[in-house]
Amino acid sequence: MAERAYLDWNATAPLRPQAREAWQDALAVVGNPSSVHAEGRAARRLIEQAREDVAHLVGARPADVIFTASGTEANMLALSPAIETGGEKRPRDRLLISAIEHASVRAGGRFPREAIEDIPVDADGRVDLAALAEAMSRALSRASRPLVSIMLANNETGVVQPVADAAAIVHAAKGLLHVDAVQAAGRVPCDMDSLGADLLTLSGHKIGGPKGAGALVRANEGIHFADPLIRGGGQERGLRAGTENVAGIAAFGAAAAAARRQMAEEAAHMLELRDRLEAGLKAISPPAVIFGAAADRLPNTTLFAAPGMKAETAVIAFDLEGVALSSGAACSSGKVQPSHVLAAMGVSAALRGAVRVSLGWTTTQADVEMFLGAWRKRTTALSKGGIAA
Amino acid sequence: MAERAYLDWNATAPLRPQAREAWQDALAVVGNPSSVHAEGRAARRLIEQAREDVAHLVGARPADVIFTASGTEANMLALSPAIETGGEKRPRDRLLISAIEHASVRAGGRFPREAIEDIPVDADGRVDLAALAEAMSRALSRASRPLVSIMLANNETGVVQPVADAAAIVHAAKGLLHVDAVQAAGRVPCDMDSLGADLLTLSGHKIGGPKGAGALVRANEGIHFADPLIRGGGQERGLRAGTENVAGIAAFGAAAAAARRQMAEEAAHMLELRDRLEAGLKAISPPAVIFGAAADRLPNTTLFAAPGMKAETAVIAFDLEGVALSSGAACSSGKVQPSHVLAAMGVSAALRGAVRVSLGWTTTQADVEMFLGAWRKRTTALSKGGIAA
Repeated sequence: MAERAYLDWNATAPLRPQAREAWQDALAVVGNPSSVHAEGRAARRLIEQAREDVAHLVGARPADVIFTASGTEANMLALSPAIETGGEKRPRDRLLISAIEHASVRAGGRFPREAIEDIPVDADGRVDLAALAEAMSRALSRASRPLVSIMLANNETGVVQPVADAAAIVHAAKGLLHVDAVQAAGRVPCDMDSLGADLLTLSGHKIGGPKGAGALVRANEGIHFADPLIRGGGQERGLRAGTENVAGIAAFGAAAAAARRQMAEEAAHMLELRDRLEAGLKAISPPAVIFGAAADRLPNTTLFAAPGMKAETAVIAFDLEGVALSSGAACSSGKVQPSHVLAAMGVSAALRGAVRVSLGWTTTQADVEMFLGAWRKRTTALSKGGIAA
Repeated sequence: MAERAYLDWNATAPLRPQAREAWQDALAVVGNPSSVHAEGRAARRLIEQAREDVAHLVGARPADVIFTASGTEANMLALSPAIETGGEKRPRDRLLISAIEHASVRAGGRFPREAIEDIPVDADGRVDLAALAEAMSRALSRASRPLVSIMLANNETGVVQPVADAAAIVHAAKGLLHVDAVQAAGRVPCDMDSLGADLLTLSGHKIGGPKGAGALVRANEGIHFADPLIRGGGQERGLRAGTENVAGIAAFGAAAAAARRQMAEEAAHMLELRDRLEAGLKAISPPAVIFGAAADRLPNTTLFAAPGMKAETAVIAFDLEGVALSSGAACSSGKVQPSHVLAAMGVSAALRGAVRVSLGWTTTQADVEMFLGAWRKRTTALSKGGIAA
């Protein structure tokens, strides 16, 4: 059995061997990709190869991939009133987001706070399409031009959102749809055309690439960013200035290629282990609640709560037992806050102290056993009432 | 003799062995630095170690280092009207920049175009302090609160700017001084206190760290960013959201430590080779002009022109001879544009097609010889008038 079980893949995944190799190879290339000499051109080629691989993962054209330093930066770039389509220069004046978006979308990009509106989700954590349709029709009647952002899969519950249906509603009301696919990529299909996404965000380190590389992908070149977030040099067709993270991008590309090639196999592997984990969890603790279980979910994610369990202490207890997992989102400086996702799902405050287990392509049966062993101990402690778990 | 001579260190430097090692070590650490488990805490430690090393390079406190993905992003973060000092919340309403700043400063950050004012430079490429004083006193008389940005060393000429004198002028008029030290760091001392810099920008890949890591450093915690560029999670004390580029930051830190330790020795090494290079250049081609030669310059940079030489074709010709160098700045998507730096210095259009040679810590005498050999060939071609160099 491994010394520790890393079950926090939604926070970050280990680097894939292909990504590590691409990074090593990139080290041999010295140049700045903006330089015209041989060294510069070699660096440029690495980026363009990665652009193809990332485009391929989501069925886009390489020219429509804009590399950023993170999914968060891609979301900030996307969520701007100054996104023009079809030559229409009137700014987008409203941002509609699902109530369960990541903090980087909830921050609203470059929209003023009063222009941002939440779309509710149902008890299973799925965005409420009727509420979206109403919000869009209200916007249409006010001659408003909304930008809509709906994630493909939620980072806490793993619930896959009805993005294609949402896209039809958004487009019927002349809206533009941004899809944060950070948690979905490599786990479920992310074809931009099938999804109807106008803009889509990816993060390298969630699919086995390095931290520090992300991308915003647009559906076509008709989508124009009149106000790029980071300006200066002309990198990324003038849409994102700054010397490119060449090795990081090359590694991201290699991870994207591997993720695409291996997705079906990896998803099946994760799903099998996740099913065992959930069956074991319920067997040990029948009153445990698995959130979003009735919905379509990512094959790797389980968010659960049990009566009396406190997320903060549970995460620490699991850590001491050698199991790394999380209390919902990990992306905010170690502060444990009540989950806005569970609140949006109408989960009672008593059950909002949930714990997230997220699996990956190298997760083993032994990891699952280690989790279940630790959970058995916790449950015993809880039932004795001696230690708040 | 090496197969090729890489003499474009101002565009980007090779990774230092210490940085490569730090990157490799960081790969063993899986966690997200925001996670509370052991894996997350290990990632956090790498970042905090790097923060100390970067702070040490510029004489700052670790808590005042904000990691970004590039020098460009650091400049964008710094150049905001919403920078507050001493509890004063009135926005900075004017941005004064030297006429020779990098494109990422010239873009003006988040200041509107009409609020940006150029401060001229003299014929040697030094910022005109009298003009700065006038602009500051004009601002003061209008109750304006300017932010000023002056680079420590110019990327094209290598001319070191009188930043400490500028700081005195700026502070006397209640201005705030940002210093882009991207090209200076590791080559000349960059102590923030001695410079009088309130904010200072660094880029990892110019000092032997990886591309994709930069930093904005503030002089003290009293400088508050009311409007961070990238928002979402609470990373970097809420000043820069997005999962940190852990391995990249660790490698940046290692490079900063090495650069600091080895600066004196490396500077002497580069200066010796640069002197030989310039002596050889003038011996081969007496009418060649070396820009900023009368000013204090970085020890590694030579920007030169010769009658009849065209930068575009010269760079390509050098490349074919195995010498990688540049025509001024490389940071703008391979497009060759006339140098705004030379224009600001009052250099006649005929001489603005300049070529930049920039050396580094692994540059050898053989590299210099290779450059001089190629230059001899070029000069012969030029004097025959057969090929436009």
